Amino acid sequence: MESQKNSPQKILIVGGGFGGLAAAKALAHRKDVQVLLIDRRNHHLFQPLLYQVATAGLSPADIAMPIRAVLSNYKNVEVIMAEVLEINREKNFVRTADNLQFFFDHLILATGSSHSYFGHPEWQMHAPGLKTIEQATEIRRRVLSAFEEAEKKTNPEEIRRALTFVVVGGGPTGVELAGSLAELSRVTLSRDFRRIDPTRARIILIEAGARILSMFDESLSRRATRDLENLGVQVWTSSRVAEVSAEGVKVGQDFIAAPSVFWAAGVTPSPLGRLLQTPLDASGRVRVDENLRALQTENIFVIGDLAHFVDQKTGTALPGLAPVALQQGRHAARQILRRLDRTELKPFVYLDKGMMATVGRKKAVLQVKSWRQSGFLAWLAWLVVHIFFLIGFKNRVAVLLQWAWSYLTYKRGARLIVSREWMNSQ
Amino acid sequence: MESQKNSPQKILIVGGGFGGLAAAKALAHRKDVQVLLIDRRNHHLFQPLLYQVATAGLSPADIAMPIRAVLSNYKNVEVIMAEVLEINREKNFVRTADNLQFFFDHLILATGSSHSYFGHPEWQMHAPGLKTIEQATEIRRRVLSAFEEAEKKTNPEEIRRALTFVVVGGGPTGVELAGSLAELSRVTLSRDFRRIDPTRARIILIEAGARILSMFDESLSRRATRDLENLGVQVWTSSRVAEVSAEGVKVGQDFIAAPSVFWAAGVTPSPLGRLLQTPLDASGRVRVDENLRALQTENIFVIGDLAHFVDQKTGTALPGLAPVALQQGRHAARQILRRLDRTELKPFVYLDKGMMATVGRKKAVLQVKSWRQSGFLAWLAWLVVHIFFLIGFKNRVAVLLQWAWSYLTYKRGARLIVSREWMNSQ
Repeated sequence: MESQKNSPQKILIVGGGFGGLAAAKALAHRKDVQVLLIDRRNHHLFQPLLYQVATAGLSPADIAMPIRAVLSNYKNVEVIMAEVLEINREKNFVRTADNLQFFFDHLILATGSSHSYFGHPEWQMHAPGLKTIEQATEIRRRVLSAFEEAEKKTNPEEIRRALTFVVVGGGPTGVELAGSLAELSRVTLSRDFRRIDPTRARIILIEAGARILSMFDESLSRRATRDLENLGVQVWTSSRVAEVSAEGVKVGQDFIAAPSVFWAAGVTPSPLGRLLQTPLDASGRVRVDENLRALQTENIFVIGDLAHFVDQKTGTALPGLAPVALQQGRHAARQILRRLDRTELKPFVYLDKGMMATVGRKKAVLQVKSWRQSGFLAWLAWLVVHIFFLIGFKNRVAVLLQWAWSYLTYKRGARLIVSREWMNSQ
Repeated sequence: MESQKNSPQKILIVGGGFGGLAAAKALAHRKDVQVLLIDRRNHHLFQPLLYQVATAGLSPADIAMPIRAVLSNYKNVEVIMAEVLEINREKNFVRTADNLQFFFDHLILATGSSHSYFGHPEWQMHAPGLKTIEQATEIRRRVLSAFEEAEKKTNPEEIRRALTFVVVGGGPTGVELAGSLAELSRVTLSRDFRRIDPTRARIILIEAGARILSMFDESLSRRATRDLENLGVQVWTSSRVAEVSAEGVKVGQDFIAAPSVFWAAGVTPSPLGRLLQTPLDASGRVRVDENLRALQTENIFVIGDLAHFVDQKTGTALPGLAPVALQQGRHAARQILRRLDRTELKPFVYLDKGMMATVGRKKAVLQVKSWRQSGFLAWLAWLVVHIFFLIGFKNRVAVLLQWAWSYLTYKRGARLIVSREWMNSQ
């Protein structure tokens, strides 16, 4: 992309998540712009269903699509797989890990967030998070291996320890993961073992706050807690994790001996926000103005989990949700077109689509403005919304079939323990 | 499984491939036997379709099933995931890597084979084989990454090098992999890149012998060669690999600069055969008598790729094919039942089901005794046989749909680059 006069506007999008893809699509049909999307992975990931991969209900490919394939029809959009390490705001370029330079007229930064271990990065090794395909298959490997290990033991204490699963964090991801682990052990695996009883696995959900799903109404938190308990999940609230090690988890004065600990607690914004050298909030998100531009910049938009955008209605920052990223991505793209057309920018207004979380088969909670719903109807709504949003026809059909199948048979299609090593050990 | 009098016969099967599973199923309905199947993986793998995983056509879970789930309904069959490191023929037990001891009255050894690098184990790192899920996803990662890397380059020489794929070994696996790589580059990826032309990827199939598919009739070898060439594969016969490095492959006096080299050449039997300390053949396979018993043993059967069984009709050893393993597994199980029933053992007779190999979409070669078939009809036969044999209803339907889908759209559903590392690098 060498610069030349009267060439089309160069718009660079970093990040192929919900926000970045929405922006690319919104820019796709303008002949006067040339879009380059850079992501360090080759695939867009439908993160809301990642817990299903972690619990062997879906295959990675069911919820991931090559970014290239998603944007294949948009001839003015290029895709490059690379990791951005430097952003130069004065000369308007980014530099990648393989030392390539890409110039831009406008930049949209949409690199999202990853897990935060509250200043204890050493916990990560013992407690994988759930943000990437690699992490989801690592969790799946640990979960399935735990049952295999237990089947080989004879000491009841050791079996009990092997079958203890701790999920840290009572947000939607933690709730969904814990509920799904309970179903896996209570239903799917129940008939496949001869020595152990998989239904006796302990699943403990740990939340530092007073209640799980704290962003939902209190009645829904209560309902979700009861639903989880019905599934056999032990819900510990007001419980702060003090230490995670290979042995287990220290929670206040308590200690849970558990080989399997999974992390769904805090998030930390992508480190790319810092490269802009514009004002950040306390957690490291880039502060953006009402037009979604990073403060003190003209041509740099930041969207999604990485942005700190103050909602005018509530006076607080918007949460890190897929609908926020989607709407901001589209809006940022249109802002850039407004700048090209020399019309006035329009402040971003978030259209609240509500929130939902599923607690297991046929159970969910849903909140849209003042409407609250729980139980089977909420689950149906959850199902429809998630299938609808899955990008690409193939994925929608495959996921639907997979679900129908596991629904009819209580089986799970992706119970693979895949090693991290591919070479023959002989 | 502690030993006691009048307890059911303990039959230990090591290996959950085609042979081991067939044996377990044949023993499943006898109340007087107790079966234990040990495998170091949790899944049975439908290896004939592994090349489809390597080229992003299928997901790993489409061709793999938890051994436990396959045998779930057979109440007298237990499954343990462990690696056997020791076989004691005098005291009749095996010991696993986690130091567990399992006693047996009869043993069926069915641990198959892995790739042989002809005394150059250091080549493996540069040239993954195609025997496990891990290897298939490693090949997929390298193939898809090669196109991503090429898209970032400007120097035509470098692009040409990045898009050079060498497949070593002209047996069915090598032919299928090369054909599938050609289709991936010629069709699937052709519209997804903006800078490079994926259809210009070079795919070179290297065979040391005078012709590919040498176990087939010469006319079918010729046909397969022509079909591969029509797809754009360069077929090099009488070409012996002298060296494999990170830079490429040395073939006689030639050198091919290629970052992507895949290994489908020789196989070497599982090292467990040696533990028996009975006569082996030159390649390390366990010599078995007409009853499938390892020489000099009474109660130890060896089947499938690990066994050297001399076919009475031809006077030569049976090849390492799935039908051989299946038939031998069933036969070994029945031999054991004959011993329990004190009836005479029956020599194993291989019922030749023929061989087939696919060369790409709608092309295959097939040979059953004196019948030879190639082209579309052979491909249809190949399709029906492979779908039919895929274990488990779910897999059959899922695989069929996936195929139908990629057939209609020329897309591939599993184009994921998955890293071997799951931890956040930040």
